[in-house]
Amino acid sequence: MHDCLPAADQLLLQRAITLAEGAIGVSEPNPRVGCVIHDAQGRLAGEGHTQQAGGPHAEVMALRAAREAGIDVSGGTAWVSLEPCAHHGRTPPCADALVAAGIARVVVALHDPFPQVCGQGIARLRAAGVRVDIAPEGPVTAAARALNIGFLSRVLRGRPWVRLKVAASLDARTALPDGRSQWITGPVARADGHAWRRRAGAVLTGIGTVRDDDPRLDVREVPTLRQPRRVVLDSRFATPPTARLLSPPADVLVVGAVADAPRQAALQAAGARTLLLPGQDGRVDLPALLRQLGSEGINELHVEAGAVLNGAWLAADLVDELLVYLAPKLLGPGRDIAMLPALPSLDEARGWRFIGSDPVGVDLRLRLMRQGADAFLG
Amino acid sequence: MHDCLPAADQLLLQRAITLAEGAIGVSEPNPRVGCVIHDAQGRLAGEGHTQQAGGPHAEVMALRAAREAGIDVSGGTAWVSLEPCAHHGRTPPCADALVAAGIARVVVALHDPFPQVCGQGIARLRAAGVRVDIAPEGPVTAAARALNIGFLSRVLRGRPWVRLKVAASLDARTALPDGRSQWITGPVARADGHAWRRRAGAVLTGIGTVRDDDPRLDVREVPTLRQPRRVVLDSRFATPPTARLLSPPADVLVVGAVADAPRQAALQAAGARTLLLPGQDGRVDLPALLRQLGSEGINELHVEAGAVLNGAWLAADLVDELLVYLAPKLLGPGRDIAMLPALPSLDEARGWRFIGSDPVGVDLRLRLMRQGADAFLG
Repeated sequence: MHDCLPAADQLLLQRAITLAEGAIGVSEPNPRVGCVIHDAQGRLAGEGHTQQAGGPHAEVMALRAAREAGIDVSGGTAWVSLEPCAHHGRTPPCADALVAAGIARVVVALHDPFPQVCGQGIARLRAAGVRVDIAPEGPVTAAARALNIGFLSRVLRGRPWVRLKVAASLDARTALPDGRSQWITGPVARADGHAWRRRAGAVLTGIGTVRDDDPRLDVREVPTLRQPRRVVLDSRFATPPTARLLSPPADVLVVGAVADAPRQAALQAAGARTLLLPGQDGRVDLPALLRQLGSEGINELHVEAGAVLNGAWLAADLVDELLVYLAPKLLGPGRDIAMLPALPSLDEARGWRFIGSDPVGVDLRLRLMRQGADAFLG
Repeated sequence: MHDCLPAADQLLLQRAITLAEGAIGVSEPNPRVGCVIHDAQGRLAGEGHTQQAGGPHAEVMALRAAREAGIDVSGGTAWVSLEPCAHHGRTPPCADALVAAGIARVVVALHDPFPQVCGQGIARLRAAGVRVDIAPEGPVTAAARALNIGFLSRVLRGRPWVRLKVAASLDARTALPDGRSQWITGPVARADGHAWRRRAGAVLTGIGTVRDDDPRLDVREVPTLRQPRRVVLDSRFATPPTARLLSPPADVLVVGAVADAPRQAALQAAGARTLLLPGQDGRVDLPALLRQLGSEGINELHVEAGAVLNGAWLAADLVDELLVYLAPKLLGPGRDIAMLPALPSLDEARGWRFIGSDPVGVDLRLRLMRQGADAFLG
């Protein structure tokens, strides 16, 4: 199982992962899966990725493409970025579809962590006489995991992967002292930020940002088939029913810590759902919120907030990834990225790890992962 | 002159530039120059780079290497990263040495901007019947200029290239509120910082940093043949004669704005030179200091200071390049990169341009150039 996989298989698994990227913003809350199928002569027969929830999975799409091209795949091979499903969910098991089509070999990048699937898809294939090879640990498995980090987080630890986004100057200012922040970063970085919103199941902000900026928080700068849920942390349900993020499209959840029946009713009348999750000090219970969002199928939670709420998430050690757009300018006095408690010593600084640094227009996009954030992957 | 240069010539000029990098920390205040010589049959005959000031230039080193290898270079070709010198300085003209050796063709990456040389080395070669080709604008000329940006700055605008270095957390803190800063970045980034000190003619700090950190400001973490000059901005000559940066090796310059004979005498007794350059508000006149350092042969000035002095350099718009080591951590309350005046609007933010983003150990090294900083190159 951990033997070396031929280079051709590695490349085709990488192709399956690239196809799976086509499921971003489409398949949520289902995982992003891609599939490549060759016929018995080793010719490309079909490709596909997971469609929207309830729609066909990657394997079925690839088989369908082969059938539409009039190619017989019996005796062929399938490369899949995630173990084929073995259970009847909203669709029949993909393992069965591969068997029925006469596929002789399946190469899998990653085990499905979902308890109803894990290992069973592979067992079902092998029981039907299909040869199954699983990729050894390496760049391909890492890429397969990274693409579904939110799905894996939800299934394995019951909560979304939390990605906190900030746009800041070199001196880490997110706005001038009076709150003006349009624009610190350029249009390319802003569009890239929308692409990250797009892949999230929900975009979260706080009442402070709603008051200061009245953002829509939807995906506008890149094309999308669906809008992520908007979530507002708003202890006292003070979000005005006229706030722009309450406009269509998509559902909105306002989470408070202190019940206020009239305000909750007004928000509900404006189309929002309200949720009471009291934590300490009259603030929302953040871990409970993550569990709730996980139970509702949110894989990736995208946080775009101000210094106070950013500080609360960071101080609670609940942020898995930082997405920092750094503009090539110095602002001087201004608002900070996060309001954090003072450190007793430099050794106490929480550890992060750079996982990316890429130019986006004139700005730079930095990505960091909290040390140990991916420990749930085992 | 701006015709296309054959790819082989481009590669050999690139090799000459790589050789020239060997002159970093060696040739100051002379430019970093490299030379590759092939014999008439196109075989490598010799390579070299500029030695310390007063020592042989790149062309002479390459000719010497050929001679020591017993290779006749008459009818051969030389690739040089900068126009060969035509004047008798501390060494005889390199153009004459190439002619005497019978070199038939010289390929030049960049004109020498030095008034006594510009075009004359090339003219001298051509007058002797040598074919001279000059690289058209492109990556090679850009690399040749970047390597000697300090030399070009000093010759063309009479002042050093000013590079300001900071090591900061993601939230742009350079120290805890009480000044503790050891260490924000890791050992690889610190060694890299010493490599940048090494290439500077002088390393500058302020009296605040001397008081807080008592730094040595020398090059320790990487091997070096010479130590850059240390410069302290210290309006009232308050640097203690026991300060560590007054220890050997290398010369130290303390620049003040208010004369204080006893303190200046004490600093001189400790081996430092003192200079009075009064500017406005009892502070040192920064433009005058740059002119002075330029006249003393400083090509690159490396600034490592605290928020007050960094702010003064930046507010005066005298910083050409930022060298930012970004550590993957958040500090919360702490010291800022630079104390800057408030901006009236975001549009007023001074423009910089990212010219590099590279991992150094666990940290990230960002390089930025001020918009228009290289306008003197024409």
